[in-house]
Amino acid sequence: MSAAGTPIRDLDTPSVLVDLDRLEANIARAAAFAREHGISLRPHCKTHKVAEIARMQLAAGAVGLTVAKLGEAEAMADHGFGDIFVANQIVGPIKVRRAVALARRVRLSIGIDHIDQAVALGAAFRAEGSELPVHIEIDTGQRRAGVLPGAAAVELAEAVSRVDGVRLDGVFTHQGHDYLVPSRDEVRAVALTAQDAMVATAEAIRAELGTGCRVSIGSTPSLIDGALRAGVDELRVGAYVYLDASMANVVGHHDWCALTVLSTVVNRPTAARAVLDAGGRALSRDRRGAGTVLGTPGYGHVVEYPEMVIDRLSDEHAVIDNAGAGVAIGEKVRIIPNHAGGVSNLFDHVFAVRAGVVEDVWRVVARGRNR
Amino acid sequence: MSAAGTPIRDLDTPSVLVDLDRLEANIARAAAFAREHGISLRPHCKTHKVAEIARMQLAAGAVGLTVAKLGEAEAMADHGFGDIFVANQIVGPIKVRRAVALARRVRLSIGIDHIDQAVALGAAFRAEGSELPVHIEIDTGQRRAGVLPGAAAVELAEAVSRVDGVRLDGVFTHQGHDYLVPSRDEVRAVALTAQDAMVATAEAIRAELGTGCRVSIGSTPSLIDGALRAGVDELRVGAYVYLDASMANVVGHHDWCALTVLSTVVNRPTAARAVLDAGGRALSRDRRGAGTVLGTPGYGHVVEYPEMVIDRLSDEHAVIDNAGAGVAIGEKVRIIPNHAGGVSNLFDHVFAVRAGVVEDVWRVVARGRNR
Repeated sequence: MSAAGTPIRDLDTPSVLVDLDRLEANIARAAAFAREHGISLRPHCKTHKVAEIARMQLAAGAVGLTVAKLGEAEAMADHGFGDIFVANQIVGPIKVRRAVALARRVRLSIGIDHIDQAVALGAAFRAEGSELPVHIEIDTGQRRAGVLPGAAAVELAEAVSRVDGVRLDGVFTHQGHDYLVPSRDEVRAVALTAQDAMVATAEAIRAELGTGCRVSIGSTPSLIDGALRAGVDELRVGAYVYLDASMANVVGHHDWCALTVLSTVVNRPTAARAVLDAGGRALSRDRRGAGTVLGTPGYGHVVEYPEMVIDRLSDEHAVIDNAGAGVAIGEKVRIIPNHAGGVSNLFDHVFAVRAGVVEDVWRVVARGRNR
Repeated sequence: MSAAGTPIRDLDTPSVLVDLDRLEANIARAAAFAREHGISLRPHCKTHKVAEIARMQLAAGAVGLTVAKLGEAEAMADHGFGDIFVANQIVGPIKVRRAVALARRVRLSIGIDHIDQAVALGAAFRAEGSELPVHIEIDTGQRRAGVLPGAAAVELAEAVSRVDGVRLDGVFTHQGHDYLVPSRDEVRAVALTAQDAMVATAEAIRAELGTGCRVSIGSTPSLIDGALRAGVDELRVGAYVYLDASMANVVGHHDWCALTVLSTVVNRPTAARAVLDAGGRALSRDRRGAGTVLGTPGYGHVVEYPEMVIDRLSDEHAVIDNAGAGVAIGEKVRIIPNHAGGVSNLFDHVFAVRAGVVEDVWRVVARGRNR
């Protein structure tokens, strides 16, 4: 795929455009934040799944990568990355074998939230004559994975400390419930409450076990707000590289949004309706916490016509019911999706553009690596 | 990828399983319906995007394939299929050039709903010394693409008949608003109303132009109900091959559902909650008309625990809040997704299984071919 030098208006649609000026600024902004506060930045690659972007993040000072799946970790290892944290639970003999194989190639660490996971991993790594660093996932309010902060986490940490083959390195959380709160002030409150619970839990584990225990937090909305307590060691943010339409609600504008989906108007069936060639299979159907601080009207922000609302998506169509007369069949528009990470997983390539011209085409190397 | 002979319980997760007995029965059932009623069946490949399944559909009597995108058509042409209808509008010089190139390889036909589309295609095919068969899309109530039945369609047909390089072959509709009605009786009513409008419109076009005009309809819910008016020539259904959880509402049971997502329980954070390793990136976030005849509780039907509801999805997790005590970490379950076609587009391979054992691994050759 050679498209360097092509003006974006001459690209076929739907295509994913990544604005390099904005991407670089987003990467630099988070890196500066981490540097200023003396914490590590370990960006989550699930947002982009692109080796070139991960390299830019490391070049800006990131200490390593975060991924959601072993398959993503394997893809990134294949592209030369050497320090990867799987912020998820690894369950079952097939995945345990894959983890052992991967740990021969990279500095791998993995999340756990139940002693059974640690026991299975420990047995495999002990047989390998090796030791896997693990991090206990803490549920700071998202109600997904993780043990509760405080006593439950300390109890699990004690149990893990007795398992050969694994070594407890720290605690981590994804305070993703900040996507659902009704105001930016509450984003900040969620972040600080979660950080307080994490720092206290790590202190309790250190006191109980007499070991170190690092504190890692995630979620981009909190980063945008800059909320940070002393005692946090590491920031695992992902969405900050692209800052999609939902994140624009927290930022307050769309000027930092780096990813757009280029789309063509293919129908004008009525004076009010326009149909674009980017449906659920290009934009994803993500609404990201509709009705709250990150909620968005419709299925994406149309850059050229910000008043337009994408009311409905089918697989290959976006339907706009308030298009007005000014949009013609054949016209191309850019859509900032609600959830850029969902878009990344639908495309094999993205176009890296600057000032409206393609500089490079990047393969989404971890697309679909969901095992 | 060689997995033949593997019991499904030994597969890594999340994986897509296609039950061959059910798939074959679904294909045979629709083929028999078309044969009994003397109409053509031109299945929509967007549901599966798999060459092996398209071959099974043709072997059962299908006259050709339907696709949503030129990219899907190109992928299917690469796998030897020779008669392909793109049930969508082709707009812009890049796609017109691709259509010309593709028509050198296969019998291609394309949908239109505006004279500008026909003029652009006609100019390119005339320059090629060729003629493209086109079909006018009719909006029978879905309010997406298409012109209204009756006078608007006849007017467009007349205009198209004066364009060299294209030849009007028929009219087509996707009566997809049957996904949103509140009862199975209304599914039937939508289908018959749409068919009446299509047949009348085709008759008006024939009378006005003195030419033939074939009538093609789509949408699986109507097929399940068997609603069919005289004068319909062709059935373009897609979802019938897999019959997902939404379609099960119309069928009345899950026994025909051919596609499942095999998933592992990775967390049991509380007595009530279970977390599976199949999130939005494995199941898609599709609800398919929630609250209506096709609406489903949650994000998929768990085969082994039908009372469970998948309340929430994040990218890589499904969260069940009513799991009860009986489900253990490491246990594998099969999920019938709400929208099987959305799942197909997320995976590079599916496992073809019979009686719980893998027979073959099929590549999803048109995955992501959304241009």
